[in-house]
Amino acid sequence: MVKINSKPKQDGYRMPGEFEPHRGCWMLWPERPDNWRLGAKPAQKAFAQVAENIARFEPVFVGVSSSQYSNARYLLNKNIRVVEISYNDSWIRDIGPTCVVNNQGKVRGVKWDFNAWGGLKDGLYFPWDDDCLVSEKVLEIEGLDMYVSDLVLEGGSIHVDGEGTLITTEECLLNPNRNPHFSKKQIEDILINYLNVSKIIWVKRGVYLDETSGHIDNLCCFVKPGVIALTWTNDENDPQYAISMEALCLLTNSTDAKGRKFKIHKILQPEPQFITKEESESLDYSPYTKHRCYGDRMPASYINFYIVNSAIILPVFRCKEDDLALNTLKELFDNREIIQIPSREILLGGGNIHCITQQIPK
Amino acid sequence: MVKINSKPKQDGYRMPGEFEPHRGCWMLWPERPDNWRLGAKPAQKAFAQVAENIARFEPVFVGVSSSQYSNARYLLNKNIRVVEISYNDSWIRDIGPTCVVNNQGKVRGVKWDFNAWGGLKDGLYFPWDDDCLVSEKVLEIEGLDMYVSDLVLEGGSIHVDGEGTLITTEECLLNPNRNPHFSKKQIEDILINYLNVSKIIWVKRGVYLDETSGHIDNLCCFVKPGVIALTWTNDENDPQYAISMEALCLLTNSTDAKGRKFKIHKILQPEPQFITKEESESLDYSPYTKHRCYGDRMPASYINFYIVNSAIILPVFRCKEDDLALNTLKELFDNREIIQIPSREILLGGGNIHCITQQIPK
Repeated sequence: MVKINSKPKQDGYRMPGEFEPHRGCWMLWPERPDNWRLGAKPAQKAFAQVAENIARFEPVFVGVSSSQYSNARYLLNKNIRVVEISYNDSWIRDIGPTCVVNNQGKVRGVKWDFNAWGGLKDGLYFPWDDDCLVSEKVLEIEGLDMYVSDLVLEGGSIHVDGEGTLITTEECLLNPNRNPHFSKKQIEDILINYLNVSKIIWVKRGVYLDETSGHIDNLCCFVKPGVIALTWTNDENDPQYAISMEALCLLTNSTDAKGRKFKIHKILQPEPQFITKEESESLDYSPYTKHRCYGDRMPASYINFYIVNSAIILPVFRCKEDDLALNTLKELFDNREIIQIPSREILLGGGNIHCITQQIPK
Repeated sequence: MVKINSKPKQDGYRMPGEFEPHRGCWMLWPERPDNWRLGAKPAQKAFAQVAENIARFEPVFVGVSSSQYSNARYLLNKNIRVVEISYNDSWIRDIGPTCVVNNQGKVRGVKWDFNAWGGLKDGLYFPWDDDCLVSEKVLEIEGLDMYVSDLVLEGGSIHVDGEGTLITTEECLLNPNRNPHFSKKQIEDILINYLNVSKIIWVKRGVYLDETSGHIDNLCCFVKPGVIALTWTNDENDPQYAISMEALCLLTNSTDAKGRKFKIHKILQPEPQFITKEESESLDYSPYTKHRCYGDRMPASYINFYIVNSAIILPVFRCKEDDLALNTLKELFDNREIIQIPSREILLGGGNIHCITQQIPK
């Protein structure tokens, strides 16, 4: 593998929007019993359902540890390619490469630094050494050259419109648990040079109680350039209300890299989702892993969908808001099939469908 | 990955000769300190030299365990693709897939059963469970469909001319430590159906003291259809003399699948190679691994070369026979560069350059 010493912008590469065509998608098989209940068996079924639905539209690689290899190979459809990769947990959106493309359709990867969403202070588990090698292992199998940045950044903390605009949250990217040695200006320079964007929009906070320090990909995303979907609640007593309202105001008063005002669509969040006693008790205890307690509210949001070629893979929570989200997204993505996947078992691990997928652009 | 339920012959696939064009080559990084002395560091240097020379002529993948990944990636040239694969040891000739091709240039793999060269009776280590998954992991990364045979067979125990002829040894393929439940006729039927050969030549024995139960790939090989190179000694007191003479007589009196007599070229073996006290003592002890003792003679042979696109990667032993082998092979392969690699550190592990490589045909 070639590690490139320059930066994507100077080489004419940019990060495309997720809605642009994909060459394929990567996932990692859930396994660790201190984060996935009942030995990860329910989560494995949910991941398999996600993988198989994505594979209807674009090629899927699933990385899996040596110990789970045969089980994953057995459970996944034969059109899914299963390869051995070690990792600490399955959030490839955050630990995988961010791919960039040039005008000739050439693809390269960016490897970021990673500290398990907050390092020794706020991180969700320890250690995270295997996670740090996932990007280069993926790129090696894909046969793509690699840029390396020393910025601690998870893929879920950024969204781009592919036309120069990036949205992120201050709660995450300016958090002292990530890059205390970089100023806001330095972080912006890195994003500009590695993703080839010209306008960075800083939303204040992510979804209420999101343990990622408020990743943007659970709060809002681009439907296409100039159009944003935002998680929403009408309940003024829900702490999420102030967060979504704050984001709405900021985005309404912003323009993108091309000078356009945003068209913003509210997606009503599901009814609040809480961890049950049974769910909490079906996890292994570990002193080095964030404990998931009975009664804790989870950061459930429909925004955490994955845009696959020709379709949307949408998390649903078996509540009445599911259909509202479905109908809104049908209107927003009128040329894509909307596929609903019950995703509570993924949410229990701390994220959702967008967090467990990573596209390789075409 | 698709597992194909038919057999290569009925689908029009055949195993090509090693001298036919390759799409690439696979190797596995040496690691286990009970088989590779000094924590495998000297062997890793030798493997890297082999990989880098092959990579001058065809793409190379090196599989490596999670624990050695970063070290291998650091030590290997950047044009070599390093991917994570678990295995029990590095003999990909024997544990990797045997690839077959059809007339349209499509490639598929055959996965054999494997029992570490003799199972619980004669096997060289225990367990070998990771080895048994290497073929499918390789084929998954290559994107090739797979046939599965229940014959215990290592790739080093067969050579084909690509035109219907296969040579192997009775010592290995008829050994009760491999396939006691199959008759000779049943084994021949499997070889015919999986490799699409029509003539099987059974040499009696492999090289003296070869712990693989006498693999053919250390004794003789095809230079091209109708032409064979055979390891040789003129020392009638060397036990190898009777073995090579026996093979010479048998091959001289055989014809290939096309009815041709063979032209046989003798390659004088290197002077006998013995394990030194220092070498033996720099291995870890394990009750489940064949112990390599001070004074043991190793099965050194120049025949264990790898035919790469446009070149030969030839083991040498720093003795006077090296130049004889070089000169003979220059004549035999007059359109290929002959690259000599000092290979004692590979031989100490139990095999040589052919044993640690596996081509994927074009």
